[in-house]
Amino acid sequence: MVTALQKLETRMSTVDSLVCVGLDADIKKLPEKYQSSKTPQFDFNKDIIDATHEFVCAYKPNLAFYEVRGEAGVRELALTMEYVQKNHPDIFTIADAKRGDVETTNEQYAAAVFDTLGFDAITLHPYLGHTALEPFLQRSEKACIILCRTSNPGAGELQDLLVDGKPLWQVVTEKIRDVWNAHDNCMLVVGATYPGEMKQIRDLVPDFVFLVPGIGAQGGDVKATIEAGVNSQGLGLVVSSSRGIIFSSDPGREAKNLRDEINKYRTRESTT
Amino acid sequence: MVTALQKLETRMSTVDSLVCVGLDADIKKLPEKYQSSKTPQFDFNKDIIDATHEFVCAYKPNLAFYEVRGEAGVRELALTMEYVQKNHPDIFTIADAKRGDVETTNEQYAAAVFDTLGFDAITLHPYLGHTALEPFLQRSEKACIILCRTSNPGAGELQDLLVDGKPLWQVVTEKIRDVWNAHDNCMLVVGATYPGEMKQIRDLVPDFVFLVPGIGAQGGDVKATIEAGVNSQGLGLVVSSSRGIIFSSDPGREAKNLRDEINKYRTRESTT
Repeated sequence: MVTALQKLETRMSTVDSLVCVGLDADIKKLPEKYQSSKTPQFDFNKDIIDATHEFVCAYKPNLAFYEVRGEAGVRELALTMEYVQKNHPDIFTIADAKRGDVETTNEQYAAAVFDTLGFDAITLHPYLGHTALEPFLQRSEKACIILCRTSNPGAGELQDLLVDGKPLWQVVTEKIRDVWNAHDNCMLVVGATYPGEMKQIRDLVPDFVFLVPGIGAQGGDVKATIEAGVNSQGLGLVVSSSRGIIFSSDPGREAKNLRDEINKYRTRESTT
Repeated sequence: MVTALQKLETRMSTVDSLVCVGLDADIKKLPEKYQSSKTPQFDFNKDIIDATHEFVCAYKPNLAFYEVRGEAGVRELALTMEYVQKNHPDIFTIADAKRGDVETTNEQYAAAVFDTLGFDAITLHPYLGHTALEPFLQRSEKACIILCRTSNPGAGELQDLLVDGKPLWQVVTEKIRDVWNAHDNCMLVVGATYPGEMKQIRDLVPDFVFLVPGIGAQGGDVKATIEAGVNSQGLGLVVSSSRGIIFSSDPGREAKNLRDEINKYRTRESTT
């Protein structure tokens, strides 16, 4: 069995890219030509995927942008996933859902995202503890991307609280490393807007892959982010950009440019 | 404008009930007769609502049980909400969604739950801090129910961590009380399985309303829960039960029984 994390690593190497495109198809921001379509978000995503696929390791729709349209949005998210799976089955897919409930409910969420929609990975809240997250964690063929240090203003309000002298994000990191990752399928969300913390987290978990939001619109700096976060193989980061790519005049060029800019700063150990 | 919290308080008094029925219409557990229906979850919910409405102050569908069915489930959740709004507009409705993302994404989730689906309230994760939650918090006519001390096994893994000698759930409680509740529309999730903590939280926030899951299937004791959590008016609790009511042979009787059992333990200040 090829696990989700193996699939991701293979894809990163094949296209030499750490870029993830956030398919946040905000219905209000779609270009005019999609507005009269019967499936505007799907049609838009299809064009974005066609334009960007050769430059990306992952796609990451945020479910909120689909749920706001009710059943129509959920249908178009499903169509988008079918399109990726059919045409680009080697691209890693992340449900940016930020779920986290009690165990019996998480069974339903895991089925919804991994089985009904077919995603490789999901973003998760840590607040209820790892026992509650078991329905996700036990899916060893999938990836569980747990919120650790997020990219938003005010993220530190809880995440920087000190527990025995350590910020909460560090406690979460260590718990995931030592306990939650029993099935070798955990990743961490580490925002690009805090490269100092990213470096510390990299030192705590040299082998983990980070999902890195916050590049572009949220202000994260590419050079600082890559230098702080890349692992010793020049991998270990899935760098997500959404608005900066999907609503640009040339999404393919923007995706390629971001790939190339990231690659400039990826220090790789010599393999000679 | 009648706010969601005013609506809730009026309903509690009118039907003299703190009972919330969790509309967790698990498709695999629906009685045989619904299985061949075109809208099984909606038909089931409709029957549950017809049987229980006179004994409840609130309905709380957990979105996971609908999302697992994709667009069909989302449609039936919307039908359920329409049915409640049309027939029982005075009953408080809670989207048990446990959402929590960055601010621009939370705008979409708030629109999805408050506007597209029309809920009065939503459950939220605190991990990203209150700035991220502003799109929910600023909806002063709606209610924001923030996870504080949850009912699940292992809830203490993060929630009991000590920050300056205080458990994290206490820090969250105090932040909500002092800052996050600027629009007087916050509630807290406080699980029935930890009556000791519930008493401490009640002392910290005498006037807040708690959403209390964990009665029944999760093992919470009614007497201990009510005595620990009720406020000085005999109110302040929305006690949620799902499986114990909706999958019983007589949901109406079970809802009435829970209402009556709760009412036995509601100490109310004399109004003479």
